[in-house]
Amino acid sequence: MPQPPDMLEITPTAAIRNDQHGNRAKCLQRLVRLDLPVPLSVALSFDAVRGLALGRQPNLGLLSKIFDADDLLSVRSSSEAADWGGPGAVLNIGMNTRIADKIAESHGRDVADALYLSFIRRYAVDVLRLDDDLFDGPMTPSIALAHYEDEMEESFPQDVETQMAEVLRSMARAWEGTSARLLRQAQGAPADAGLGLVIQRMSLTVGKGESGSGVMQFVSTQTGAPQATGRYLPHSQGRAALSEADAQFIESDDRGPALEDRCPEAVMALKSFGDIIRTRLREEMQIEFTLRDCELTVLDAVRVPRSARAEVRIAVDLAESGIIPKEEALMRIDPGTLNQLMHRQIRSDAPRDMLCQGIAAAPGAATGQIVFSATAAQTCAAQDIPCILIRRETSPEDIRGMHAADAIVTERGGMTSHAAVIARGLGVPCVTGAIDLQMSMRKKTLTVPGRKVFHEGDIITVDGSTGQIMAGPVEMIEPAMGGAFATLLKWADEARDMGIRANADTAEDARVAMQFGVDGIGLCRTEHMFFDPIRLTVMREMIFAEEAEDRAAVLDRLLPMQRADFIELFELMQGQPVCIRLFDPPLHEFLPTGRDAIRSLAAALDLPASEVATRIESLQEFNPMLGMRGVRLGITIPEIYEMQARAIFEATVAASKGREPVVPEIMIPLVSAKREVELIKDRVDAIAASVRNESGTDFTYRLGVMVETPRAALRAAEIAEHSAFLSFGTNDLTQMTYGLSRDDAGRFMSAYVNQGVYDEDPFQRMDQDGVGELLLLGVERGRSVRPDITLSMCGEHGGNPESIAFCRSAGMTYVSCSPFRVPVAKLAAAQLAIKDI
Amino acid sequence: MPQPPDMLEITPTAAIRNDQHGNRAKCLQRLVRLDLPVPLSVALSFDAVRGLALGRQPNLGLLSKIFDADDLLSVRSSSEAADWGGPGAVLNIGMNTRIADKIAESHGRDVADALYLSFIRRYAVDVLRLDDDLFDGPMTPSIALAHYEDEMEESFPQDVETQMAEVLRSMARAWEGTSARLLRQAQGAPADAGLGLVIQRMSLTVGKGESGSGVMQFVSTQTGAPQATGRYLPHSQGRAALSEADAQFIESDDRGPALEDRCPEAVMALKSFGDIIRTRLREEMQIEFTLRDCELTVLDAVRVPRSARAEVRIAVDLAESGIIPKEEALMRIDPGTLNQLMHRQIRSDAPRDMLCQGIAAAPGAATGQIVFSATAAQTCAAQDIPCILIRRETSPEDIRGMHAADAIVTERGGMTSHAAVIARGLGVPCVTGAIDLQMSMRKKTLTVPGRKVFHEGDIITVDGSTGQIMAGPVEMIEPAMGGAFATLLKWADEARDMGIRANADTAEDARVAMQFGVDGIGLCRTEHMFFDPIRLTVMREMIFAEEAEDRAAVLDRLLPMQRADFIELFELMQGQPVCIRLFDPPLHEFLPTGRDAIRSLAAALDLPASEVATRIESLQEFNPMLGMRGVRLGITIPEIYEMQARAIFEATVAASKGREPVVPEIMIPLVSAKREVELIKDRVDAIAASVRNESGTDFTYRLGVMVETPRAALRAAEIAEHSAFLSFGTNDLTQMTYGLSRDDAGRFMSAYVNQGVYDEDPFQRMDQDGVGELLLLGVERGRSVRPDITLSMCGEHGGNPESIAFCRSAGMTYVSCSPFRVPVAKLAAAQLAIKDI
Repeated sequence: MPQPPDMLEITPTAAIRNDQHGNRAKCLQRLVRLDLPVPLSVALSFDAVRGLALGRQPNLGLLSKIFDADDLLSVRSSSEAADWGGPGAVLNIGMNTRIADKIAESHGRDVADALYLSFIRRYAVDVLRLDDDLFDGPMTPSIALAHYEDEMEESFPQDVETQMAEVLRSMARAWEGTSARLLRQAQGAPADAGLGLVIQRMSLTVGKGESGSGVMQFVSTQTGAPQATGRYLPHSQGRAALSEADAQFIESDDRGPALEDRCPEAVMALKSFGDIIRTRLREEMQIEFTLRDCELTVLDAVRVPRSARAEVRIAVDLAESGIIPKEEALMRIDPGTLNQLMHRQIRSDAPRDMLCQGIAAAPGAATGQIVFSATAAQTCAAQDIPCILIRRETSPEDIRGMHAADAIVTERGGMTSHAAVIARGLGVPCVTGAIDLQMSMRKKTLTVPGRKVFHEGDIITVDGSTGQIMAGPVEMIEPAMGGAFATLLKWADEARDMGIRANADTAEDARVAMQFGVDGIGLCRTEHMFFDPIRLTVMREMIFAEEAEDRAAVLDRLLPMQRADFIELFELMQGQPVCIRLFDPPLHEFLPTGRDAIRSLAAALDLPASEVATRIESLQEFNPMLGMRGVRLGITIPEIYEMQARAIFEATVAASKGREPVVPEIMIPLVSAKREVELIKDRVDAIAASVRNESGTDFTYRLGVMVETPRAALRAAEIAEHSAFLSFGTNDLTQMTYGLSRDDAGRFMSAYVNQGVYDEDPFQRMDQDGVGELLLLGVERGRSVRPDITLSMCGEHGGNPESIAFCRSAGMTYVSCSPFRVPVAKLAAAQLAIKDI
Repeated sequence: MPQPPDMLEITPTAAIRNDQHGNRAKCLQRLVRLDLPVPLSVALSFDAVRGLALGRQPNLGLLSKIFDADDLLSVRSSSEAADWGGPGAVLNIGMNTRIADKIAESHGRDVADALYLSFIRRYAVDVLRLDDDLFDGPMTPSIALAHYEDEMEESFPQDVETQMAEVLRSMARAWEGTSARLLRQAQGAPADAGLGLVIQRMSLTVGKGESGSGVMQFVSTQTGAPQATGRYLPHSQGRAALSEADAQFIESDDRGPALEDRCPEAVMALKSFGDIIRTRLREEMQIEFTLRDCELTVLDAVRVPRSARAEVRIAVDLAESGIIPKEEALMRIDPGTLNQLMHRQIRSDAPRDMLCQGIAAAPGAATGQIVFSATAAQTCAAQDIPCILIRRETSPEDIRGMHAADAIVTERGGMTSHAAVIARGLGVPCVTGAIDLQMSMRKKTLTVPGRKVFHEGDIITVDGSTGQIMAGPVEMIEPAMGGAFATLLKWADEARDMGIRANADTAEDARVAMQFGVDGIGLCRTEHMFFDPIRLTVMREMIFAEEAEDRAAVLDRLLPMQRADFIELFELMQGQPVCIRLFDPPLHEFLPTGRDAIRSLAAALDLPASEVATRIESLQEFNPMLGMRGVRLGITIPEIYEMQARAIFEATVAASKGREPVVPEIMIPLVSAKREVELIKDRVDAIAASVRNESGTDFTYRLGVMVETPRAALRAAEIAEHSAFLSFGTNDLTQMTYGLSRDDAGRFMSAYVNQGVYDEDPFQRMDQDGVGELLLLGVERGRSVRPDITLSMCGEHGGNPESIAFCRSAGMTYVSCSPFRVPVAKLAAAQLAIKDI
């Protein structure tokens, strides 16, 4: 391909390319093609600017051919993507004593002096990098010119070529500066991103009639709703109207003087330009314009800056107006954006009294009284008092309190600690790793060292989207899950070709999931059902029972409660599949640890405290993650799974009465050998047979395996022989593949990511190389034995667009994620399907 | 192949086969071929016996053709392998009133009555399963015959055919009994193992001259040393001479009357038969013989029963006499047998007062005073008092005490607990899981509930080979590692084609390893070097240091000690490679837990106890196995590895002076990503450069990776780019592949193995399906990038013959195991090489 010329006049047919001249140049060409009154403009290519930075002399020959000798010119940067930044615009290039005099003739000396002085300063300070204090004190152009000459030992250049060459060189070099480079790379720019420049004839905004500059857009930056918004400032240049307090409105209403009163035709034209741009450029743009004697010139148009909410609204509105297809609306939204719409957020411009920066562990923001125990949180909730639960770290016993709290703050842990995972599942904002706060659970105080001590009941605000913790209340924006958001999700459902289920442990979770229209529950962790105080007591009795029959008898009391859990879930899910994972955690998670709690448990069980303490100690494990849990419990203490299977089947019979039959899915956790599946299958089949018998009702069910040990993935072929489905639990699989405990990794994960040891926290972003290979092996081997096997991923990664792409290309049937990740997952899945067409 | 006839006379040319007639029939044929005076014998095939068990009528036509009408016959079982058992012999078949009368004529009525009565009882009780009390009270043949007729409602059969048919049927059925089946399957017999039978003409041992029966062998059952040993009993039958107190010796000496005095020619013949059998059958056999008027008949010969020690001695002696090749001697020894020669053992016939049966965790036996702390064990050792260390469980702080103890007993843990692993490494007998003993560390008592309380200083005996714990001393056999054992190892070294290294952490380990002639150290775990009290104090100071420089300063004090460690190791190993694993365990293993210990640490560090306690608490981990250890420590606290690398290189320089240069191997633990290797390699290379510089000495070294996470195995290709070697640590790899903590698995492992969930404890026997696949992937991928990479296995499985076979077929260079497993590993490797020729 031939190299583009260094400089090109921006005409409808010029070879202007986004990747060679930048997006501003390209956009200007589009405006020109739309016949908008754009001033004469010239584009400098990336290569040309690169050459300038390397010291090459600019070839400015074209400028004198195109522009008049008396034209003032502006230079603006034009990078490939608007958010990669670039040096600020330089205006009025070409200004000199002769032109100043000429302006003085027509518009008066003051106007001319102000313009000239401003250009001299800008040129000296921003282009030549002289000190700004050179121009301290009372100033006129001639004093400024003298100072300049003293400093530079040459007179201020009077020719446009010299000025322009310096400006271009200065901008080219600024682009290569380290901080500019870092800033744009943070926005995703590649290391060799180029800068284009646009040179444009300026329209002098000092005419006798109405003259000045302004900016106009037609949707709200905050909401995306249609709303013409503009500001205009007489005799100004550039974007000054946006920042000056005395700028005027554009449309005429009761808010004060407006441009429409004086130049109605220009404003009418502006509005029609808005329509044209929206329709033809298929985007909401902000128009930068000037007036000279009410004559309109469009200098530039840029994509309207927008909040997450506005982004969705604009895309949906464009599609609903038929301007873009629905698919394009879906493709335009970064799935992560949807997170911000589902949670309360702190207004970006709200003042705040920062206390501490922790880890943004679960999105959303909340204000409330601080409390230091799960019980206190529940008490507040019962009285409808918003509260923030403060804990060193959370444990399963805290879950009901976490549910009751409006936000959670922990001293320990990271993105994948217990607090973080549960909070995201519950949709409760959470900040973890708040190590700069000193917590005393005993004194019930939260201390910001050297600043303040907060007591129980004091108000703070927690922003789980940013990790910030602030004193007192802070102004919020409410979530926006209706309207455009709902429409977008509906379109995503139409487009996607992959199932999205939710991880839901309780009826409440299931309701949230159904509100987002899921395809079922992919992971119902039944252990969370046992932390209710009554059930917890029964669980503890079961743990302390000596014999299998005693255990079974105790578990019989849990049976009706579990059955009721499942009936409620099945009914809520209205025939959508529900995948129930059998009991998974180690039993010691159900036992108290403090001395008082042990004493009261001993009293409840009518056992000596020392015996209770000994039993608790004997259940402790060195590495609970790798211990007596999951199917290992199911095999060694069969009564638990038997009770659960019975509860599931009895609920199936009950929930199927007079309705479409429920087909429950039962999932076995922590499998590492085929024989584990066989043993559990035999027992579950036997329970099913006896429930069928007792109830006189036939039903079917599907038994499957949660693949979360590397061995289960490797042995997926033989495991699949007995499994209707395999669901990959990437949380544990990641822990075991790396030999890395999620709960302990927080201590070094940031050092690891910062030093590039891991590209990213593998609990955040699935490791496609290692864990991914095990997944692919598992999928392939499982399917080789049972071609119709259902394959899926559950666990935290299930809501991550990149993981969803991985699962889809591996041919999985669905992914399952926290209810609050479902919209993100749906949009990600829709985008993948659209890309694949 | 045509079916063999049901019955075959055993002649030199008959088609007798081990797998159709059993090993006794085959052996008899060999004796016949050697022209030994074997009585006329007939073999029944497995199929014939199977038919009898199913109720088929025996075809006894051949018997009347071969044997005389007055011959008495015996039937003996003949299974495929001697140790699969079989029903006991039945003698004197054919006995009846007529023959009894005839014997009475020639030998007197008493002899005849005794023979006849004994046969009637045996036939009634053992063959027909009548009650033995049928023959209570004073008995003669005619009373017995009457009782028999009363009970059976028919008279005692007088014809040999009827008797023989019943005997054969009875023996055939006994073979099919459940307990016989279980017993032989425990010896490795297949489910369909067959039984052959041998019918032999009896030689009546009641002649006028010297008549009787005896048994003779030419080596010691205990030691295998040449030693003619035999017993003879006049007028006896079968093997009675072995059990009767009044049996005589065979060779004439000063111990009492001997057969040689009366039948010198027969004894001379017996001795020459021994030589013939040894030379021609290439085995030490025990000869069963009868004499009739000093005329010798050889009834049978069986392999001499032998201890482990005798087994080795016999094989080596046969090879040294040129009777079998060395290779065959190597192949004849089960490698596991060697374990028994390396440790003291309790005499199998020693009386013992059993206290408890635990898990046989480390072989060998010891008697000593019980002590309840590592310190007490060290005190005993200092005074040369044998002691047994009693602990609930052991931790790294106990190691010096474990070293000092003569045996270790723990209440908790299994084959793979800390105590078990360390004890096997140290060669100290150990019993774990002694849950029937109640230990009180505070009171220093060991209670056998309902029996006895032992106090510190009381004597017990521990047998780590069987798991038994006994009161007081018990008679022992000393180890035997010289002589035949040493010769066998030398031959194994000549035969094997795979390296065997030892895991050795200390100079003492290295000395043991060198005594067994290893090919180097495959795993030197450096952390054990830090548990010496002085070093432990420094380690703790390091852990409490705030800044990197402080840590480095503290570690500087450890540097000379580590350097000395390595110099000693390098010098001991005399140029053999030493693979040093960099520091691996989590730091909290070095911190005390008790309140007093924390207080005294606080005093030593001059810090408030609360601060020390907080720091200790903050280092605790949920899953230490998956936490901040190995290379993760190396990267986040680089000072530790830097100190170690410097110590290694300075030791290299020192130990290479005036000798062959040492080439140390440095191994990085717990790697899960390539970048970890790169970072450590950069640092280690820099330290090497600076030591080269400072010392003015050049040296080389090899840096490699311990592959112990599934991810390291999967990513072996990229990891190999920077690794001179990969050593597979199958302990951790097994833990992570299964998601199974060795320390916690004890609680359910036996249930799992008993229910067949796992075929075997995967920490005992490597899981070839899952872990094995990761190993093979790692080997293949590592080699694909670096064809000359050194591949090996370290860890517990390295000493297991089955794993060694796996490693050899995967093409690994060496395996590394505990020093005390080296002989087993060498023999296993030799056998693999021999089989492969």
